[in-house]
Amino acid sequence: MSEFDVICRKIRNVDIQGAENVARAAVKALMLKNGEKSVQKLISLRPTEPALRNAIEFVKGDPKRMGPLALEHFRDSTMKIAEYGARKIEDGMTVFTHCHSSSVMAVLKEAKKRGRKFRVNCTETRPLFQGRKTAKELSGAGIPVTMFVDSGGRIALKDSDLFLFGADAITSEGKVINKIGTEMFAEIAEKYDTDTYCCTDSWKYDPMTVFGLKEAIERRDGKEVWTKMPKGVNIMNLAFERVQPEVITAIISELGVHPPTVFIQEVRKAYPWLG
Amino acid sequence: MSEFDVICRKIRNVDIQGAENVARAAVKALMLKNGEKSVQKLISLRPTEPALRNAIEFVKGDPKRMGPLALEHFRDSTMKIAEYGARKIEDGMTVFTHCHSSSVMAVLKEAKKRGRKFRVNCTETRPLFQGRKTAKELSGAGIPVTMFVDSGGRIALKDSDLFLFGADAITSEGKVINKIGTEMFAEIAEKYDTDTYCCTDSWKYDPMTVFGLKEAIERRDGKEVWTKMPKGVNIMNLAFERVQPEVITAIISELGVHPPTVFIQEVRKAYPWLG
Amino acid sequence: MSEFDVICRKIRNVDIQGAENVARAAVKALMLKNGEKSVQKLISLRPTEPALRNAIEFVKGDPKRMGPLALEHFRDSTMKIAEYGARKIEDGMTVFTHCHSSSVMAVLKEAKKRGRKFRVNCTETRPLFQGRKTAKELSGAGIPVTMFVDSGGRIALKDSDLFLFGADAITSEGKVINKIGTEMFAEIAEKYDTDTYCCTDSWKYDPMTVFGLKEAIERRDGKEVWTKMPKGVNIMNLAFERVQPEVITAIISELGVHPPTVFIQEVRKAYPWLG
Amino acid sequence: MSEFDVICRKIRNVDIQGAENVARAAVKALMLKNGEKSVQKLISLRPTEPALRNAIEFVKGDPKRMGPLALEHFRDSTMKIAEYGARKIEDGMTVFTHCHSSSVMAVLKEAKKRGRKFRVNCTETRPLFQGRKTAKELSGAGIPVTMFVDSGGRIALKDSDLFLFGADAITSEGKVINKIGTEMFAEIAEKYDTDTYCCTDSWKYDPMTVFGLKEAIERRDGKEVWTKMPKGVNIMNLAFERVQPEVITAIISELGVHPPTVFIQEVRKAYPWLG
Amino acid sequence: MSEFDVICRKIRNVDIQGAENVARAAVKALMLKNGEKSVQKLISLRPTEPALRNAIEFVKGDPKRMGPLALEHFRDSTMKIAEYGARKIEDGMTVFTHCHSSSVMAVLKEAKKRGRKFRVNCTETRPLFQGRKTAKELSGAGIPVTMFVDSGGRIALKDSDLFLFGADAITSEGKVINKIGTEMFAEIAEKYDTDTYCCTDSWKYDPMTVFGLKEAIERRDGKEVWTKMPKGVNIMNLAFERVQPEVITAIISELGVHPPTVFIQEVRKAYPWLG
Amino acid sequence: MSEFDVICRKIRNVDIQGAENVARAAVKALMLKNGEKSVQKLISLRPTEPALRNAIEFVKGDPKRMGPLALEHFRDSTMKIAEYGARKIEDGMTVFTHCHSSSVMAVLKEAKKRGRKFRVNCTETRPLFQGRKTAKELSGAGIPVTMFVDSGGRIALKDSDLFLFGADAITSEGKVINKIGTEMFAEIAEKYDTDTYCCTDSWKYDPMTVFGLKEAIERRDGKEVWTKMPKGVNIMNLAFERVQPEVITAIISELGVHPPTVFIQEVRKAYPWLG
Repeated sequence: MSEFDVICRKIRNVDIQGAENVARAAVKALMLKNGEKSVQKLISLRPTEPALRNAIEFVKGDPKRMGPLALEHFRDSTMKIAEYGARKIEDGMTVFTHCHSSSVMAVLKEAKKRGRKFRVNCTETRPLFQGRKTAKELSGAGIPVTMFVDSGGRIALKDSDLFLFGADAITSEGKVINKIGTEMFAEIAEKYDTDTYCCTDSWKYDPMTVFGLKEAIERRDGKEVWTKMPKGVNIMNLAFERVQPEVITAIISELGVHPPTVFIQEVRKAYPWLG
Repeated sequence: MSEFDVICRKIRNVDIQGAENVARAAVKALMLKNGEKSVQKLISLRPTEPALRNAIEFVKGDPKRMGPLALEHFRDSTMKIAEYGARKIEDGMTVFTHCHSSSVMAVLKEAKKRGRKFRVNCTETRPLFQGRKTAKELSGAGIPVTMFVDSGGRIALKDSDLFLFGADAITSEGKVINKIGTEMFAEIAEKYDTDTYCCTDSWKYDPMTVFGLKEAIERRDGKEVWTKMPKGVNIMNLAFERVQPEVITAIISELGVHPPTVFIQEVRKAYPWLG
Repeated sequence: MSEFDVICRKIRNVDIQGAENVARAAVKALMLKNGEKSVQKLISLRPTEPALRNAIEFVKGDPKRMGPLALEHFRDSTMKIAEYGARKIEDGMTVFTHCHSSSVMAVLKEAKKRGRKFRVNCTETRPLFQGRKTAKELSGAGIPVTMFVDSGGRIALKDSDLFLFGADAITSEGKVINKIGTEMFAEIAEKYDTDTYCCTDSWKYDPMTVFGLKEAIERRDGKEVWTKMPKGVNIMNLAFERVQPEVITAIISELGVHPPTVFIQEVRKAYPWLG
Repeated sequence: MSEFDVICRKIRNVDIQGAENVARAAVKALMLKNGEKSVQKLISLRPTEPALRNAIEFVKGDPKRMGPLALEHFRDSTMKIAEYGARKIEDGMTVFTHCHSSSVMAVLKEAKKRGRKFRVNCTETRPLFQGRKTAKELSGAGIPVTMFVDSGGRIALKDSDLFLFGADAITSEGKVINKIGTEMFAEIAEKYDTDTYCCTDSWKYDPMTVFGLKEAIERRDGKEVWTKMPKGVNIMNLAFERVQPEVITAIISELGVHPPTVFIQEVRKAYPWLG
Repeated sequence: MSEFDVICRKIRNVDIQGAENVARAAVKALMLKNGEKSVQKLISLRPTEPALRNAIEFVKGDPKRMGPLALEHFRDSTMKIAEYGARKIEDGMTVFTHCHSSSVMAVLKEAKKRGRKFRVNCTETRPLFQGRKTAKELSGAGIPVTMFVDSGGRIALKDSDLFLFGADAITSEGKVINKIGTEMFAEIAEKYDTDTYCCTDSWKYDPMTVFGLKEAIERRDGKEVWTKMPKGVNIMNLAFERVQPEVITAIISELGVHPPTVFIQEVRKAYPWLG
Repeated sequence: MSEFDVICRKIRNVDIQGAENVARAAVKALMLKNGEKSVQKLISLRPTEPALRNAIEFVKGDPKRMGPLALEHFRDSTMKIAEYGARKIEDGMTVFTHCHSSSVMAVLKEAKKRGRKFRVNCTETRPLFQGRKTAKELSGAGIPVTMFVDSGGRIALKDSDLFLFGADAITSEGKVINKIGTEMFAEIAEKYDTDTYCCTDSWKYDPMTVFGLKEAIERRDGKEVWTKMPKGVNIMNLAFERVQPEVITAIISELGVHPPTVFIQEVRKAYPWLG
C-alpha cells in the first residue's frame, strides 16, 4: 500500500481528527501523488469539509511548491489566532467553552503563558465526551477547569465572562457550523451580554455557499449515543448546528478579529483564489 | 431489623426513587411505627423533599386513619393529572420532555389510551440517563419516540408543539425545582411560543418558602458525571435548577390546570393544613 | 313558530351577534320555555361560548326569578367596565384596538363623555371588516379615528399608548380567546411597553378549562376570505387565537381591574356557582 | 400650635420622610385628635400615599385602641421583612439596590447580623442622591458597598446576583410604584435572570386601583435637578415610575414572599378592611 | 403619440407593474429616444424607484449599446436568483411569503422544477390582495398553497420553515423597503429562528442613501382600503415599511447569497458606476 | 516654555477637550516641532484616543504638508456629518441624546438651519453634567430641549423617535466606545425599534483592535462622583462603555451612512494608511 493510500485510509477511518489535521494530511498526500484522480479521492473522504477542499484547491496546481506554503499557513495561522485571542482574556475572567477546538486550546494556553489568571467552564459534550479531552488538556496546562453536563450549560454560562468555540465551516451568510449545542449556548451568551468568539483558521470558509449551497449537517449513528439502544427508540444524532452571525461577537482568525460579516469580506480579499 | 427500619434503609439507599414513591413509603412506615422520633428520622432521610414532609404532616396525627387517605391521595392524583394532561395532546402533535417524570408518563400513556396520534422528543438527560428510561417506557407503550443528546434540546424543541416536565418542589414564588436543564429548555420553549406544562402532585409545594426559605439545590458527586475523573478537573454536578413561573404555561395537578401563581393559591385553599 | 324557536333561529343564523347579546337572548328564551331540552338546544347553538353556557347555568334553576337578574348583570357589568376602563384613558393618548368589541366601545365612549381628549388607531380586521364598524361608530361619537390595514398594526401600535380589546372566552390558564391577530398585536404591544387591557364581562370565563378542556378555535369557511376562491387554493380562516396572560396587563371586568391570573381567582370567588 | 398641627406641618414640609414614617406620624396625630376633619386634613398632606390612607382607615374608627395596633403593625412588619429577605442573601453574593429603602436596609443589616458575607452595588440616585445615604449607612454597618452613577446601573447589575428595592405604592395590576429608574433596572435584571425582590410593608397596596384609578406620578420642580437651570431648558423631573409585575420575582412583605399577583390576593385576605 | 410617450403613459398609469418591469420599459423607451429630457421625464414617473434610476444611469450614455445589456442583466439576474434561492428549499418544508414578488415566484417555481416537495403559506396582503395573485400562480404551478388573512401571519409563520420576500429598495443601512407588514413578519420569523431571505435584483440598491437620504414611504389613497369610506374616518394607507437588516438572514440576488451588510459592499464592487 | 510644550500641557490638563480638538491641537504641535520624540510625547498624553494617534500617523511623515490636510479633514468631516445626519431628522420628531458630542450638536443645528421642527430629550449625564452643556447649547440655538436625570432615560427614549450619540473610539468588532450609559440606552432604543445613529469622524476607528487589542475603559477618580465621599464607600467611576454593533443602526461619518460592520470596511478603504 502506497503512502498516499495510507493517508487516505487514516482520514477515512477518522484516525486523523480535526478539520485542520485532515487538511494538512491531504496536502502531504498530494505532495506525494498529485493529479485530478488524487484530488477527487481526497475530497471524497470528507465531502463536507471546506478546509480540506480549500487546501487542495490552493495546492493542486503545483504541490511541490504550494504544499509547504499550505502547511506553513496552518502553522502561522494557529500562532496568530492564539496571539489575538489571548488578548481577550483578562485576569479574573471565567471562560466558557463547548466541545474541543484546537484553536480555542491554543488561545487559552497562550493566555496562560502570558500570565493571565483565569478559569474555564466547559461542558462534557455528548455523545463523544470531547469536553473531557478539553478539561484534561487544560488541567494539564495548569488552567483551573470545571466541567458541567451539557444541560448545565446555561448555569455555566451565567458564571462566565467569555465564550470561545471553534468552527467546522463558515458560510457566505456568516453562519458558523459547529458542534451541536453551540447555537443554543451562543443565544444564551447573547442574552447575558457575554462576548462570544469563534476561533478558527479562515480556510473553513466555504466559497460555494455564496451560490446558495448549504452545508450538510451530518446525522451520525444512534449507537454513538446509546450503544444498546433498544428497538423502537429512534435517535437523532446530529453532529453539528448552524450558529447565526447575530450571536457571534467576532471570528478570531489569522486575518484578525472581525465580526462574521466582515470576516467573509476579509477572507475573500486575502485569498482571492478561494473563488 | 424492623420493617420500619427496612423502609428507612431503602429510602436512604435510593432503592426507592421518585419523590412520590418516597412519600408513599414514608406514610407506610409511619403506619407501622408512629411518634415524633419516627417523624424526625423519616424527614432526615430526604431533608429537601416537600412531598415527603407534607405527607408526614398529613399523616402523623393519626397514621392508622390518615395513612390510607394519603395513599389514596397519591393514587387519585396521578389519575387526575393523567386525565387533565391528556386533553392537552392533539393528533399530529410532537411532545418534548426532559428527564423522567412519572406524572408525565401517566399523561402520555393516557393520551395514547384515548387514541391520540402523537410522537415524543426526549433528551437522554445526563448524567444518569433518565431519558433512556423515558424513551424505553414510551416505546414499550407504543408511542413513537426520538431521543436527542441534551445539547440537541433546542432543535428537539423547535420541532415540538408542547413541553411537559415533572417537579421536585414548588416554591411560594411559583418557581418549580426540577432536573437541571429544565429552565434552559423552558426559556427556549417560551421563545418559540410552545406551551409548557409542569405535571405534578400538588404536595410538592413547599409551604416554608413563604418565609423566604430556599429550596437547596443538591450538588452531587462528580463521579456520577465522569467515573475516572482525573485529578485537577473539577465537576459541578448540580442535580436541579429553578424554573421561573413566567416560562411555565400552567401546572397540571390533581387540583386542575392552573398557572403557577394561581396554583399556589389553590393548593393553600385545598390543603389548609399545609401551613 | 313559538317565540322560543324564533330566538333560537336568530342565534343560529347569526342575526344576533356578540357573545353577550347571544347570552341575553338565551336568557330571554329560557324565561319563555324552560327545561332540560331547552337548555340543551340553546347550548347546542353556540357550543363554544362560555358566556352563553354560564348565563344558562345561572338561570336554569328558576328562570322567572333568575332571568331578570342575569339581564341586570349584563347591564351593570357594561357600565362598570366603561367606568373602570375610562379611567385608563388620559388626555393626549392614542388608543389602539383590533376588531369590534362592545365593551371596548363602551370604555371609549365613556372616556369621551368624561371629556378626555384622545384618538384611536384601529385595524380594518379582515375577513369581516369589523374594524370598519369600530371606525364608523367612534367617528359618529366624535372620537378621532384612523384605520390601518391589519398588516399595518405594528406601525399603528408604535404610535399608540394603550391597547384595548375584547374577549370571547377566558381559560383557567389566564389565556384570552379573541379575534385572530390579537396575540400578534399583544406581543408587539408588550415589546413597546404599551399597556394592554382586555375589556370583558367576567362570565366569559370557562370553568371547564380547569380540567384541561381547551377552547376550540373555530375554522370558518374560506369563502369568507375570498368569495371566488379558485380551486387548488386552500384557505385557513381561523376566527380566533389564544392570547397568553403574560402579554395582558389586566382584564377590566365588572369585578374590577385584575391581571389575568388574579381575575381567575376573583371570578371564582364572585360566582361560586360557575363551578 | 397644637401637637396635631405640628405633626401636620412636619409631614407637609417633608421633615418626616418615607411613606411608613409618614403613616406612623399620622396615626399618632389621629390618636391626639380624631374626627372626619382630622382624617381629611391628614390625607390631603400626601394625597398619593396608600400607606398613609390605609393606616388612617385602620385607625380612624377608634384611634385609642387601633393606633397602638397600627404602630405595632409597622414594627412587626419591618422585622418580618428583614427576616424573610435576609434568607435570600447567600455568602459571596453581590446585591444591587437603587435609591434608599428602609425595608431594604433592614434586610441587608439582618443578613449581615446573621453572618452572611456579601457586598452591595448601589446607584447614587439622582436628583436627590439618596444612594449616598444608602452607601453611607451600609458602610457604617460594615457591609462593603460600591456606588455607581445611575447610567452605570447596567454594569452594576451585570455584576450582581440579586436586586432589592422598596415601594411607594402597589396597584391591583401588580405594578409597583417606586423611584424613577426602578423599571429600567428591573427589566435589565430580568434579562440577566437576576432575581428581583420588592421589599415593602403590604399597606402600600392601594385598594382604589381595582376600580381603574391610577397612581399619579409626581412631577417635581426642575430646580431639584439643576439649581441654576437656564431659561429655555425644560426639565422633566418625574419622581417615580411603574414597575411591571412580570419583572418582579416576588414582593417580600410581612405576609411572606409572594409574586406580585399572589401578593395582591394575600393582602386582601389578610386585611379585608382595606376594601 | 410617439412610442416613447406610450411607454411613459403606461408607466404613469401603472399599466406596467413591478419595479423591474418598469425599469425594463424605461430602458426600451430610452433606446427609442435618448437625451437629458427623456431621462428626467422617465425618472419623474416613479421618483422613488431605485431600479428605474439605476437602469437609466447604466444606459443613458449610449442606449443603443447599453440598453440590450441592461435587458440582459434583468433576464440573467432572475435566473440566478431562482437558482440560488431554490437551493434553500428542502423536501418537507413550508415556505411563508407576503405580497407578490416576481423573484420569490421564480425561486419557488425553480424549486418545484427541481423536484422539491414543499408547500407555501401566504397572506392575502391587503389592501390590493396581491396574495391572491401569489396563491393562484403557485397553485397553477402545482405547488400546494394555503392563504391566511394578514392578521393570521403569526400563525402561518409558526407553521413555516422559511420566509421569502421581495424588495422595492435597499438602503446603505442594509434596510429593505418592502410591502407593509414585511417588517412585522420578519421580526416574528426571527423570534422563531426562521431563516428569512429577501429575493431581489441588486439594482434595487439606492446609492443616494449613503448620503443620508431616506426612501420616502408612499402614503396612498384611503379609498384603496375602503371604497365607501365614511366622512370622519381617517385611513393611513402606507404602501411600504422598512425592514431592519438584523432580521434578514441574507439577500439572494444575482450576486449570490449575502447578509444585507455584505450585499451592500458586493453591489458597490460589482457595479462601481452605481455611485 | 515652547509653544509645543504649551500645547502639550493644555492637552494633559484637559484644557483642550473632545477627541477631535485634542487631535487638531496635536497636529498643530507637530507642525511646530516634528520628530519621533514629539510623536511619542503627544501620544503619551492620551494613550487611549485613536483620533489622536491616527492624526499623528497621517501627519508625522511631513507635518508641513500633511498638517493642513489633517486640519482640513476635520473641518470637512464635521460639515459632511452635519449634512448627512440632518437628513435623518423630520418635522415633528423628538431626538434623544446622551452626554455632549460636537458631531451630534452639528447635526442638530444643521437640521434646525434647514427648517426642521423637532425637539430634543437629553440626559444630564453624570458625573460631569455634560448634558447641561448640551441642553444650554441647543436651547441657545432655538431648539426646544427637555432634560431628564439619567435614570429617566428609558422614559425619555420611549418618547423619542431617534437616538444620536458620539464616539470616543470604534473597534474592528464594530463596537463603539462612548460615555457610560450609551449601551444601556442603545439597547432600550433597539427594543423600542428606535433608529440609533453614532455621529463621528471616522478617524476614531482604532486599527490596532484587529489584532485583538482592547480599548481600555478609563476608571476615573471617585471624587468626581462624590466630592466628600466618606471612607469605606467605594466608587466605580467608569468613564465609558462599549456599545455592541447590533444596537447601532448606522455610523454617520464623513464617509457616509454605514452600519458599523460596513463602516469598518469603508474606513480601511478610504484611509489605507490607517493600517
